[in-house]
Amino acid sequence: MEFELSREYFERLREAVSEQDEQFIRGSLDGVNSADVSSLLHELNTEESKFIINLLDPEIRADVINDLDEDIREKFLREFGASEIAEIVNHLDSDDAVDILNELPVKEREEVLAGIDNAEKEANILDLLRYDEDCAGGLMAKELIKANVNWTIDRCIEEIRRQAENVEKLFQIYVVDNEDKLIGRVSLKRIILTTNERRVADIYDQDVVSVETYMSEEEVAVLMRKYDLEAVPVVNVQGKLLGRITIDDVVDVITELAEEERQIMSGISEDVEEDDSVWMLTRARLPWLIVGILGGFISAKFIGVFEEDILRLTAIAFFIPLIQATGGNVGIQSSSIVLQSLANRSAFSDRLGKRLFKVFMVAALNGFMLAILVYGFNMITGGEMQLSIVVSAALFGVVLVSSFMGTITPLILDRFGLNPALASGPFITTTNDIVGLAIYFYTIHIFYG
Amino acid sequence: MEFELSREYFERLREAVSEQDEQFIRGSLDGVNSADVSSLLHELNTEESKFIINLLDPEIRADVINDLDEDIREKFLREFGASEIAEIVNHLDSDDAVDILNELPVKEREEVLAGIDNAEKEANILDLLRYDEDCAGGLMAKELIKANVNWTIDRCIEEIRRQAENVEKLFQIYVVDNEDKLIGRVSLKRIILTTNERRVADIYDQDVVSVETYMSEEEVAVLMRKYDLEAVPVVNVQGKLLGRITIDDVVDVITELAEEERQIMSGISEDVEEDDSVWMLTRARLPWLIVGILGGFISAKFIGVFEEDILRLTAIAFFIPLIQATGGNVGIQSSSIVLQSLANRSAFSDRLGKRLFKVFMVAALNGFMLAILVYGFNMITGGEMQLSIVVSAALFGVVLVSSFMGTITPLILDRFGLNPALASGPFITTTNDIVGLAIYFYTIHIFYG
Repeated sequence: MEFELSREYFERLREAVSEQDEQFIRGSLDGVNSADVSSLLHELNTEESKFIINLLDPEIRADVINDLDEDIREKFLREFGASEIAEIVNHLDSDDAVDILNELPVKEREEVLAGIDNAEKEANILDLLRYDEDCAGGLMAKELIKANVNWTIDRCIEEIRRQAENVEKLFQIYVVDNEDKLIGRVSLKRIILTTNERRVADIYDQDVVSVETYMSEEEVAVLMRKYDLEAVPVVNVQGKLLGRITIDDVVDVITELAEEERQIMSGISEDVEEDDSVWMLTRARLPWLIVGILGGFISAKFIGVFEEDILRLTAIAFFIPLIQATGGNVGIQSSSIVLQSLANRSAFSDRLGKRLFKVFMVAALNGFMLAILVYGFNMITGGEMQLSIVVSAALFGVVLVSSFMGTITPLILDRFGLNPALASGPFITTTNDIVGLAIYFYTIHIFYG
Repeated sequence: MEFELSREYFERLREAVSEQDEQFIRGSLDGVNSADVSSLLHELNTEESKFIINLLDPEIRADVINDLDEDIREKFLREFGASEIAEIVNHLDSDDAVDILNELPVKEREEVLAGIDNAEKEANILDLLRYDEDCAGGLMAKELIKANVNWTIDRCIEEIRRQAENVEKLFQIYVVDNEDKLIGRVSLKRIILTTNERRVADIYDQDVVSVETYMSEEEVAVLMRKYDLEAVPVVNVQGKLLGRITIDDVVDVITELAEEERQIMSGISEDVEEDDSVWMLTRARLPWLIVGILGGFISAKFIGVFEEDILRLTAIAFFIPLIQATGGNVGIQSSSIVLQSLANRSAFSDRLGKRLFKVFMVAALNGFMLAILVYGFNMITGGEMQLSIVVSAALFGVVLVSSFMGTITPLILDRFGLNPALASGPFITTTNDIVGLAIYFYTIHIFYG
């Protein structure tokens, strides 16, 4: 049953909320997927949403709140008391529960934890709270089905039945030894196709890919993509099975990392969206614009040094945009190619020297062709010969230097644990702009000075 | 069993290939995951790879070739005859088989099709070849398990057994009516926990999300992410079940779309990687650099018109980089925020007028603060009062216009079915640069003219 959100239905629903028409709301949302209800709430204000949420079944309510965007959810949770949040958390998987607890102030978090009536769930959540959000430990859920290698299939099915409510998405049964160490897996398909008297030991598959708790979320994503996994077990350094990460969480990670990269590349310093407030949007954008302004101001002072040259030959000023645009474009292209390599780290990366030599070759080829092109344009449009040579020579130099800077900067950032996408953002672009100007004006000085 | 690719092993393997030491190669690759073998082949040349591939079991061989990067695979396939490729295709799922066939010249494709000995597989492939690669039909595989709603669970399990080899990853059984229309699903967990005499009709879940064949790959990705699906059934307009899309393929789509966006934003016109040839890298980068050069040349001619103004007041030239950098940064920020909205289309988007009004408010706020800042800098560093006012006024105008252009351009591109990320690429940035210059010099002309 798919749910099409029409503007008519939406208006009707708002009316029902304002008239407190509980029957219409309950009826029209019955059987609707929780993700669809969440989308609906994104369009309503907090008060309207709370009215609707309170009419939902506790289980659906928990799913709906879990599906909300983080920033909207934080606003929502402020409207709920600790006992209400505890009830929501009670219905969620441990990883989702931890995400919600992490959004609460410390005091309220303690109150919510105290309100969780299921001792196992509370222990699971306390365990997960220890891990950093950006690593495998922070992504995993404790809910999974594991079977001792010595069990019969019958016993396995018994365990599935016992855990059926807790483990909603079941792909594999993880096989452990007597010390709880992960040693293999059995697919549900295999269990269906075998007789119940056989033992796990006879049919399990030893070929199981796992991750350790400290692995970064990027590494988990690369690994799950490489091996086409829908879930991956998480183990500690001793190989003990602790939890599992499902692909839906990793799809979110991949999407968020791509969004983060885009924002960094465009000089937006907070995670903002078009429907955030004017003030939030301004605050996210202003810092990097100021960086650009500072760079522009330094450029202005720098060009000022060469005032005499410009007075002697005004045409020097005409080519400032050409030099800067090319430097900027080359730098961003170079950084982007390095970003690509860093995202798909191959088995061995070439040594730095070999990489830089190749960058130099590509830059020299591009720079040479562009220099010839600009010289040709200048000649055709009646430019002065000597200045044309100077512009082309400076352009060639700018392409070489920008390529080098665009390549080396993301590598350095990455080495220091910073996001290499910063190299394509305004700070580095601004630096490149100034370097480009310096090359241009010193070239002029050499030729004319 | 995890496989760590060490440089020592790699060198040893190369040696083994050159010495034709089949025993070492077979032994050391036995039980290694096909994805790891593929990574290994990425580091070897085509001849070495072919030697290794021919030593693998036919099934592993097919998986290894399937896991190779597209550009490397295309090179590989040229080394194989039609009958060899047919054997590879025979071992693959229909969607992967079609991907490989699409990489072959038409004549060879026919020969490979003729060499497929399994009639059902051939029919499946022929059916899939009809769909565009970028839509749901092009992503789906024909392999799935479907059950008639009137079957018993026993009959279902019989069907799973029959298809066990074909359908490797099994998450859900799709339930159809007598006309083969999709009406629901049953999870494997449910099947394990029920008695075999019950009927599908008693236990199936009617709440099934499906996609139609013509849906774009972006839409499929958004939908699977929204509903946390590991597989989604594909139906035709009549609702008939045709195939299914698994999340691993969608993870690849999401990753590739992000990479494509990054390349477009940085002005790289082909899908290149750092280890491509110098010539390929140059060819991918040169077109957009030339666009930038053309823009720079137009800027040069444009500034030339105002030569008299510059001669009268050289300081005008000093602020060219400041104006341009700010225009560029504002434009890219604005486009990026629209890109974000387009990627996460909400239930209703605001009307264009309301959106633009907000953009205007943010731009006015940012522009005002930056103008004040630049005026302050100019005053502190002893700039001339009148020129300082002109620069700040022009800057304010540039921020307004760049915000507007940066917002409207991706929306227009999207409306015409083009990738909106183009708005953050060099073509639009170059156009923005020229517009920024025009605003600056006309402002000067108004004040001084």
